[in-house]
Amino acid sequence: MAEPATPATPRIQLAHGGGGTLMQQLIDAELRRLYADPDQVLHDAARLSLPHGRLAFTTDSYVVQPLEFEGGDIGTLAVTGTANDLAMAGARPLVLSLGLILEEGLELALLRRIVASLGEASRRCGVTIVTGDTKVVERGKGDGAFLNTSGIGLLQVDEPIDPLAIAPGDQLLVSGDLGRHGVAILAARHGLDLQPPLATDCMPLWPAVEALLAAGVRLHCLRDLTRGGLASALQELAAPGGLELLVEEERIPVAEPVRRTCELLGFDPLHLANEGRFLAVVPEADRQRALEVLAPAGGAWIGQVAAAGHTAGRPRGRVLLRTPFGSERVLVPLSGELLPRIC
Amino acid sequence: MAEPATPATPRIQLAHGGGGTLMQQLIDAELRRLYADPDQVLHDAARLSLPHGRLAFTTDSYVVQPLEFEGGDIGTLAVTGTANDLAMAGARPLVLSLGLILEEGLELALLRRIVASLGEASRRCGVTIVTGDTKVVERGKGDGAFLNTSGIGLLQVDEPIDPLAIAPGDQLLVSGDLGRHGVAILAARHGLDLQPPLATDCMPLWPAVEALLAAGVRLHCLRDLTRGGLASALQELAAPGGLELLVEEERIPVAEPVRRTCELLGFDPLHLANEGRFLAVVPEADRQRALEVLAPAGGAWIGQVAAAGHTAGRPRGRVLLRTPFGSERVLVPLSGELLPRIC
Repeated sequence: MAEPATPATPRIQLAHGGGGTLMQQLIDAELRRLYADPDQVLHDAARLSLPHGRLAFTTDSYVVQPLEFEGGDIGTLAVTGTANDLAMAGARPLVLSLGLILEEGLELALLRRIVASLGEASRRCGVTIVTGDTKVVERGKGDGAFLNTSGIGLLQVDEPIDPLAIAPGDQLLVSGDLGRHGVAILAARHGLDLQPPLATDCMPLWPAVEALLAAGVRLHCLRDLTRGGLASALQELAAPGGLELLVEEERIPVAEPVRRTCELLGFDPLHLANEGRFLAVVPEADRQRALEVLAPAGGAWIGQVAAAGHTAGRPRGRVLLRTPFGSERVLVPLSGELLPRIC
Repeated sequence: MAEPATPATPRIQLAHGGGGTLMQQLIDAELRRLYADPDQVLHDAARLSLPHGRLAFTTDSYVVQPLEFEGGDIGTLAVTGTANDLAMAGARPLVLSLGLILEEGLELALLRRIVASLGEASRRCGVTIVTGDTKVVERGKGDGAFLNTSGIGLLQVDEPIDPLAIAPGDQLLVSGDLGRHGVAILAARHGLDLQPPLATDCMPLWPAVEALLAAGVRLHCLRDLTRGGLASALQELAAPGGLELLVEEERIPVAEPVRRTCELLGFDPLHLANEGRFLAVVPEADRQRALEVLAPAGGAWIGQVAAAGHTAGRPRGRVLLRTPFGSERVLVPLSGELLPRIC
């Protein structure tokens, strides 16, 4: 007996990006539900009624491979990552735009899962997607799906949170243990069967920032530890002000399964990307209060900005790691990253 | 005598997107100059000091092929197109974000030309690029460069400019002749040697919208005539309100070289994309004033929204083209578009 013909897997076609009826159908069937105001899809631009105040504005494109991994997918990252960039400026995330670049042949079922993640992550982050755009490129000219989200947030701080606000004596804290997102991508990409599976750390950062502000912590600088990990973030903050950052290596929290995987594969958790962790730079007087906010979720004090005396006669704008044995080594910047396309 | 070794063409490498020193160098050398505040590249998000008022917010990704064409490149489109989407909402364009997705191997010289176009188009549109992001994907996983720009503008109208504001009796005007951008892309893509060359119509639309507002024209709806051209725009505006749009075919302005090229290749100028043309829907009483503003730049009246009587007993939400001989035909929506990746 002949097998029944299986229907072809529904896939994205080039015409879905063409501005015609197929594109309207795609938007109506798959994307319209993402919008707070479904009529928004009629418009070239969203009209915003934002609370009065100063705004922050940011953008990120997402090219992560594979598109899905333990604990999330490119949609989870696209909403959470951009909302987190606003949080890092001291702004409550409010609204997002969504730009999709789809590759011809992308399975519709996968697009649906990504759209569901976009919706779920929006709810978790407390943001609304208010405007969007969809393009389709030919098979072999993209890589499944690239996403861009841009976000607007309401600034909740009077003093700018800024690398240039960092001063000698400031204290360095991280909001949780490092490297989970990097290991989750690594595992998904190379089919590593970690037991138990290690999920991405991707999570909204605004609640922690809001809690720090509510506790009266003065935030000199915040930086999410995404591409390049803690190592890149420290380098980026040391450079502009010509500061020396002293980090106690053994204080940096790394979960045991992450450490084990890193040792096995020769990765350094300091260079692995995170999607739900940040570095906070606060004045010494606020260190304890900051720690009380961050420690319950696994946050930790990891070091400080050298007082002027420490840097006398030394090159400036560098990061020193102090080993458990008391010796110091300079953290050498990487030219690229260990894992391309991590976000 | 051996030829002197020619230095390798500088190209984008995967590590340029890695968050390390190579990425910093790319940003410092090539992108930093785009920003009004060069220190902006230190931050995850831009802090905005906008004039008080209601805002519009929009996003577009650009995937045009080829990246360069007569009269512009993907950078010209990315700034102008997004600024124009704000103008179509009745908003003065203010600030843009810029997301770059570069393919490994992209020639640095080409990236530089695109960046120069981004800067030049920003000046022409009166907008500032305030925040950005750069990603690099492996060779064969992209197509040279994809750009995303998101924009914020200041609304200059009290009544929403909205397809749902269109009423029977409203008048339809276009701001200039149609099809130039489509033909310019077609020529660049297929190596057509048009003499003289036909440049894209890509241009800022806010000045024309501002002039209409200054002349006291009530703008019920505006729509730029990009993907899908005038035909798609008319379909999109007819559908939500179930309106019948009556368009006089011979009134639609098409330049002679565009018409000739279309006849030769079997294209319909009504379906060709434009990047510097829009459709304005205005009440009948404002038709003459609107025409006085638009006509000097080639604008024209092309038709009207049927009065209720005209639609009695007919299907609603459709576009009728009246031929020079007085007969009417229904404009049939395309499922995709004639030219994929036109913007």
